Amino acid sequence: MKNRLQILGVASLALVAGSLPALAQDTPEYALASHTAYIFNTLLFLLGGFLVMWMAAGFAMLEAGLVRSKNVSMQCLKNITLYSIAGLMYWITGYNLMYTGVDGGFIGSFGPYSFDPVGGDALDTGYSTASDWFFQMVFVATAASIVSGTLAERIKLWPFLLFVVVLTGFIYPIAGSWQWGAGWLSEMGFSDFAGSTLVHSVGGWAALAGALILGARKGKYGADGTVHALPGSSMPLATLGTFILWLGWFGFNGASQLAMGTIGDASDISRIFANTNLAAAAGVVAAVVLTQILYKKVDVTMVLNGALAGLVSITAEPLAPSVWQTVFIGAVGGAIVVFTVPLLDKLKIDDVVGAIPVHLLAGIWGTLIVPLSNGDASYGVQITGIVAYGVFTFVVSGIVWFALKAAMGIRVSEEEEALGLDKTEVGVEAYPEFGQGSQRV
Amino acid sequence: MKNRLQILGVASLALVAGSLPALAQDTPEYALASHTAYIFNTLLFLLGGFLVMWMAAGFAMLEAGLVRSKNVSMQCLKNITLYSIAGLMYWITGYNLMYTGVDGGFIGSFGPYSFDPVGGDALDTGYSTASDWFFQMVFVATAASIVSGTLAERIKLWPFLLFVVVLTGFIYPIAGSWQWGAGWLSEMGFSDFAGSTLVHSVGGWAALAGALILGARKGKYGADGTVHALPGSSMPLATLGTFILWLGWFGFNGASQLAMGTIGDASDISRIFANTNLAAAAGVVAAVVLTQILYKKVDVTMVLNGALAGLVSITAEPLAPSVWQTVFIGAVGGAIVVFTVPLLDKLKIDDVVGAIPVHLLAGIWGTLIVPLSNGDASYGVQITGIVAYGVFTFVVSGIVWFALKAAMGIRVSEEEEALGLDKTEVGVEAYPEFGQGSQRV
Amino acid sequence: MKNRLQILGVASLALVAGSLPALAQDTPEYALASHTAYIFNTLLFLLGGFLVMWMAAGFAMLEAGLVRSKNVSMQCLKNITLYSIAGLMYWITGYNLMYTGVDGGFIGSFGPYSFDPVGGDALDTGYSTASDWFFQMVFVATAASIVSGTLAERIKLWPFLLFVVVLTGFIYPIAGSWQWGAGWLSEMGFSDFAGSTLVHSVGGWAALAGALILGARKGKYGADGTVHALPGSSMPLATLGTFILWLGWFGFNGASQLAMGTIGDASDISRIFANTNLAAAAGVVAAVVLTQILYKKVDVTMVLNGALAGLVSITAEPLAPSVWQTVFIGAVGGAIVVFTVPLLDKLKIDDVVGAIPVHLLAGIWGTLIVPLSNGDASYGVQITGIVAYGVFTFVVSGIVWFALKAAMGIRVSEEEEALGLDKTEVGVEAYPEFGQGSQRV
Repeated sequence: MKNRLQILGVASLALVAGSLPALAQDTPEYALASHTAYIFNTLLFLLGGFLVMWMAAGFAMLEAGLVRSKNVSMQCLKNITLYSIAGLMYWITGYNLMYTGVDGGFIGSFGPYSFDPVGGDALDTGYSTASDWFFQMVFVATAASIVSGTLAERIKLWPFLLFVVVLTGFIYPIAGSWQWGAGWLSEMGFSDFAGSTLVHSVGGWAALAGALILGARKGKYGADGTVHALPGSSMPLATLGTFILWLGWFGFNGASQLAMGTIGDASDISRIFANTNLAAAAGVVAAVVLTQILYKKVDVTMVLNGALAGLVSITAEPLAPSVWQTVFIGAVGGAIVVFTVPLLDKLKIDDVVGAIPVHLLAGIWGTLIVPLSNGDASYGVQITGIVAYGVFTFVVSGIVWFALKAAMGIRVSEEEEALGLDKTEVGVEAYPEFGQGSQRV
Repeated sequence: MKNRLQILGVASLALVAGSLPALAQDTPEYALASHTAYIFNTLLFLLGGFLVMWMAAGFAMLEAGLVRSKNVSMQCLKNITLYSIAGLMYWITGYNLMYTGVDGGFIGSFGPYSFDPVGGDALDTGYSTASDWFFQMVFVATAASIVSGTLAERIKLWPFLLFVVVLTGFIYPIAGSWQWGAGWLSEMGFSDFAGSTLVHSVGGWAALAGALILGARKGKYGADGTVHALPGSSMPLATLGTFILWLGWFGFNGASQLAMGTIGDASDISRIFANTNLAAAAGVVAAVVLTQILYKKVDVTMVLNGALAGLVSITAEPLAPSVWQTVFIGAVGGAIVVFTVPLLDKLKIDDVVGAIPVHLLAGIWGTLIVPLSNGDASYGVQITGIVAYGVFTFVVSGIVWFALKAAMGIRVSEEEEALGLDKTEVGVEAYPEFGQGSQRV
Repeated sequence: MKNRLQILGVASLALVAGSLPALAQDTPEYALASHTAYIFNTLLFLLGGFLVMWMAAGFAMLEAGLVRSKNVSMQCLKNITLYSIAGLMYWITGYNLMYTGVDGGFIGSFGPYSFDPVGGDALDTGYSTASDWFFQMVFVATAASIVSGTLAERIKLWPFLLFVVVLTGFIYPIAGSWQWGAGWLSEMGFSDFAGSTLVHSVGGWAALAGALILGARKGKYGADGTVHALPGSSMPLATLGTFILWLGWFGFNGASQLAMGTIGDASDISRIFANTNLAAAAGVVAAVVLTQILYKKVDVTMVLNGALAGLVSITAEPLAPSVWQTVFIGAVGGAIVVFTVPLLDKLKIDDVVGAIPVHLLAGIWGTLIVPLSNGDASYGVQITGIVAYGVFTFVVSGIVWFALKAAMGIRVSEEEEALGLDKTEVGVEAYPEFGQGSQRV
């Protein structure tokens, strides 16, 4: 297993070409092999990048489907804007904070990222640096999308967007530098192939901190301890979002192999595709069976989240597990959703779309179980990493949320919440001709 | 034209490398050419695989749009679950039943499939075996989706899922082995490039058997012979589903070339893309013109199905036809939809989304017409294959449906049907704030 | 910067292979390098092609979301049909009018396009000609989609489809031949990398001509000068459409590099991906900030159009700009939307989805600003090109619209408009169980 460091820091092409029999350096065959591998590696980043970019649409649809109709325009607006902010911030500060000069430490360097020059031909990196930037950039947007879902229906637009600026420009990149930037956790031997912890749990911790500070939606929890379901406005949109995310995950995990220039890499990417799909499938089946047993009906929102939890679970190590291990890992992910969604409600933590079970808890599970299949990982180091990411992200996010609360307030008024954010903050209703969510709930 | 056998059974890379001028074996150039072709072939499977995986979302949206709102959550649930079951079953039994040791016979071997080891470098297969598994796996899900659409709005969830287990783990793989697994039909010279019959008609026959045993929806056919339209809940979702399927079909047909490591293969894939698009376009235009003439209005559901029928029609032979032939084949596909949808209603066969015209009838048409453009095919053998697949799938599916009916019942009660499956079996309404389908119909 | 001519007219493979050190012609290494580059180039067209094809779904969803529910089925029907017509016309006349024998002139040759033979191996073109056709074909559909959006809710189906025939078979290809077909503007040094003018402004001019001749929707503009918002039926569908378009744009701009067989080309494609994303992000942020300042609420439809305007703006030159320049170009695009949408309303030009600001005005901006980053371009020539395309497209489109108006009428009756086109022309309501748009507006 390679981690991002080993690829990013090494002239992988020389290795590639060297792995072919009888290719001496300075021969035309060697040059040709190097050029071909460079193009394959770059292509992998571009393919993976556009698939993960597409996940932004998946989060938008999932969240639009799971909130009430009076807040749907707002979720659409937040998702397209957070993706945009993530892209800009990851250029202004993110990439270099995460990948430049970390060198065993806790943080990279400040400053905007520079792309290759036009017609760049710096063969020794082994790939186009702009393609690498593009691929890493789409990951940060994923983390921000998680926050958007949990805090839906009562957070103000502008403090949310400011939080996204901080998360995507600073929190995520600094945390990421510890592992993928070759920082201290990487040196310790932590293992997180495509980001169960680095992306999904980081997003989940930031969301949890926000949910605690923001409080639950009005009407969600009765004074007598009852929990009121506030059903989402559109199951087909939520389903579409889940399918989009599933598709995007082939890029998320597959292209995290970071190289496609050798037959070994191509084979590994293929295993990752297959395992990723099987883990999601196992998460679905687990959720179908468990909700049937527990509730006598199959809850489609649990099933959708079961798919996503299976995907998050396999993300820390999508390559090494056998199929049996993969199915086990994904099925436990699905079970986590079924059992922890009610648990959060008991704790009165209002997570509108179920993002904390899916991304935070399944992310922890996936990271914890890596040593089952990957002999290079150890449970002790995995726990160290999980705790380190949890403490850092939760504390820093909490500070930012408190600061935003003090400075400008983060929650809309009760009237605005009752009317719906679409009317009060966006000014454009999602479905002006259909049902009026505010009349019903 | 290659069929799947010729690629799957042969060390294609040696051929690839051998096709370049002056590349003797054991030279570095030969090794390099082999490695490059291996990566291209594997990449083709992965690209094709994720595009066909995306078709699962297409079926989900198409069916969600074409059922009434009281059954939309159920269609979403069925589609994500069937895709998951298909993936698991195709690993547990499907792949080996279809591709291992068929050897001119009627069935492969039992047992789960094994992926390449990590970092696999078995160059002699010519591609990563995991990539091949992934690509073949997504096809079986397509067959199951077809059944889901036809039987919507009145079949119980669990017998449907059990049928999917049998279809994807046994019926489809055994039938598939006859041709793509190098079984008896392949030896006879049957020709079905990407599965007009193997995938689409097989799904259609299974759906037809189910529809006959299950019966029509309440209110669809009056005692006096009248036919009542039960309009679908969302035309934009149905349109989205159609566009998704159209996009996925480039993977379905294009990657069925099964190799991209030579310029001839790359050119053929390109022809397949172009022909696939032109056949769908012709299906659309045929449906637009015919519904205008017949009904004085252009029926958008017919047009969407016209696109799909054009796609199914060209799937048996997307490479050999000239453009004129392609347009003819696709246009006839579109016409089949326009003329046979009312015919099924006359026979009181209630096919909710029109899957039988689109997948079964256009699939037969596409398979039958292969000899028009492909000199290696003969009408007699094509008919033999069509009949063999029809008899086997219809009879075995019928037995399974009857067994499920006897064991647990396959149809919901009249009350449940009137209330809608979302309330009675899923417990989550699709659009809780909007129209109430059960009040209107 | 290459334009399409330079690639299309030259045996690029020889250049590719020649650019590797020490590869003499007639060596096996040279042959191998040429084969590999051919496959990469072809693959780029296929990847770009399916991404741009997907934009047809994006336009369908965007327009379905931005019209009232009584006209949604019609927009779905128009979009799938126009994509089909575009594909057929671009084979019957379009491709050859645009690319064959233009030779510094104003028009190519007549006649249907011929694909490669099966197993084609004409290595000297450097790519599969069918892949090139496929990629160019999907562009013409984009131009037609723009017209569909502007003229929604009051144009009759059949004159619209006939206009699409003329636009995609004649107007667009002839105009395109001037630049990408190596016509007179190309010789003059005009620069439009991926079609800010050739695709987007051409579509916009045709839409503008139609809007002026067709007139505004009933109820849009009061006699007293008031402007009535006629809100779109579904913001999540509009958002989905925007994300689809954004995703497709990576193919639109990225594959317009037209070659991926060298590391320089692969790097340039990567820069284009990154710049394309950053320009869209800047358009979003500009629209968010400006609508907040101007209207005290963030208008989500403006933000979606801001993303698209950012994308259109960078399309004329997505490779040369630095990141700062890219952000500037995209942000101005977003600002154009915010300031010109109200302007069109003042002029009583009823553009239902905002396509004229997004595609025509941002397209002009993007084309005009090319010399900022690309030293080979000049402001004078850019203006010449913009004017030439504007005059030609506006005048010819206007003549066609007038001819259609005279021959068959282009506008539905007032009653039909009030009832909605879904009932009167399509016969299939988009949401039969939900809100009734015609009752509300």
